[in-house]
Amino acid sequence: MSPIPLVVVGTVAYDTIRTPRGEVREALGGSATYFSLAAALFTRVGLVAAVGVDFQARDRQLLIDRGVDVAGLQTYPGESFRWVGEYHGALDEAHTLETRLNVLTQFDPVLPPAYRAPEILFLAAIDPELQLRVLDQLERRPRLVACDTRDFWIEHTRPALLRVLERVDCVLINEGEARLLAGEHNVVKAAQAIRRGGSFDLIIKRGGYGALLFRDDSVFAIPAYPLEDVVDTTGAGDSFAGGFLGALLREPTRIRKALVLGNVVASFTVEDFSVRRLTALAWPEVWHRYLEFRDVVRLEDL
Amino acid sequence: MSPIPLVVVGTVAYDTIRTPRGEVREALGGSATYFSLAAALFTRVGLVAAVGVDFQARDRQLLIDRGVDVAGLQTYPGESFRWVGEYHGALDEAHTLETRLNVLTQFDPVLPPAYRAPEILFLAAIDPELQLRVLDQLERRPRLVACDTRDFWIEHTRPALLRVLERVDCVLINEGEARLLAGEHNVVKAAQAIRRGGSFDLIIKRGGYGALLFRDDSVFAIPAYPLEDVVDTTGAGDSFAGGFLGALLREPTRIRKALVLGNVVASFTVEDFSVRRLTALAWPEVWHRYLEFRDVVRLEDL
Repeated sequence: MSPIPLVVVGTVAYDTIRTPRGEVREALGGSATYFSLAAALFTRVGLVAAVGVDFQARDRQLLIDRGVDVAGLQTYPGESFRWVGEYHGALDEAHTLETRLNVLTQFDPVLPPAYRAPEILFLAAIDPELQLRVLDQLERRPRLVACDTRDFWIEHTRPALLRVLERVDCVLINEGEARLLAGEHNVVKAAQAIRRGGSFDLIIKRGGYGALLFRDDSVFAIPAYPLEDVVDTTGAGDSFAGGFLGALLREPTRIRKALVLGNVVASFTVEDFSVRRLTALAWPEVWHRYLEFRDVVRLEDL
Repeated sequence: MSPIPLVVVGTVAYDTIRTPRGEVREALGGSATYFSLAAALFTRVGLVAAVGVDFQARDRQLLIDRGVDVAGLQTYPGESFRWVGEYHGALDEAHTLETRLNVLTQFDPVLPPAYRAPEILFLAAIDPELQLRVLDQLERRPRLVACDTRDFWIEHTRPALLRVLERVDCVLINEGEARLLAGEHNVVKAAQAIRRGGSFDLIIKRGGYGALLFRDDSVFAIPAYPLEDVVDTTGAGDSFAGGFLGALLREPTRIRKALVLGNVVASFTVEDFSVRRLTALAWPEVWHRYLEFRDVVRLEDL
């Protein structure tokens, strides 16, 4: 059994989503789903998440067909995690209508043997206590450990979250979460405050406005790829993380290029509901948009 | 009397502003003030605006000292335009507490002889009927005419505004105005809809998130310079326009470079209240931050 180079621990969900562009019911979603489908464009990725007995065989097959290793998918008695949400206007903010945690309340992530020495580990936004338990199962320190979190964990489990931050190399959070975590409106000051808690790179995701990377003493800023067709922004952040870490696995020294590729992969995700666009995505499309993106941000000479 | 190469028509105001960083009372402001102080870093600029008999000699002198030509400053009986506003949080939105138009209600812009054949004309956000009257006073078509507008004019004087848009080469508006003008949330679709009304370049200002340029079939996107010290965002958009058009006057083919320079000049404006930072700004500081900005957005090779 060859070791899996990139591992994600997060959620698999069935989402019901309403946006100005339509609606889907019980569609495949969850942070680990979006992340692994995006990362699979670049490398072999192993997924650790909890599903219920209602998890569809065709969804498992869809992951496998896209090159995702599902040995880490743990089936629990009960129903899979459900999320119901809606978006308005420019789809920049999800409004949660209903959350049914279901099997998520039993989730105790276990890394299968082939997952215990990855080059890169991504801890998607789950309970920081679970994130810590995953870190304790590693056989050796990965080249890079990255994590995400959510408002809920910042507000309710801050001490555990801060222990996670001490043990990671890269934190990816959105702008609102960064402000909440730092207690500071200005995004640069917020980044400085957050980074005092560790020695990690910090990536702040700004949705339709791009992303910021704080590394050492430098800042890297990219706008989002200008999209005219935004259908459903669910999973954009996790696709971004998957594309970013997948690209970084292939070219470890090219962090800016990896961020742009993450950005590009996320730009496809939001063009259709659920994982539809992502599961139909071919590498040449990613590369073509990457080249377009370079034109969009290209500066003239001095 | 040598012709003025860059002319702005807009407002001069006394602003009272509260932000989380403090407060100023009756401080020099107004779109034409910010624009001309920013543009004066690059070229000679003539300002057309209405002031009352209360306009301070030291404010006139401040403009002159910074290289602004004030032959177009028209003094009317009564008081100068007053604006009272406040900002919260990340200072991304101004909340107007009070507007006293005062002499603005009498304003009938007159281009002095030296202003009638500029290379570039900027029509800041004033009544579109006045913008049209300014265009009618030109002796020859400038190389470039640019304009801005505001929610109020979009909502209340749309037909006149659309006549302005037919006669300009470049429109600079903020994202909220673009959405309102187009009746469309998605910024790319909004841009497409707005550009159907003319053959102009469109620049959409996104405050702390940078700017988009729509020109021919291409899009150029820049993030904002990441600032940790944001004191007062009043005048940021007009400083951006002044820096942009000033730079474009000097290097007409370098529109992307000009946008970055506009962005950089605006980043200084917001670091202090009113025009304080702008009137203390020296060209080497602008160039230094321009080089820093290039580092912030620099991509690696393919």
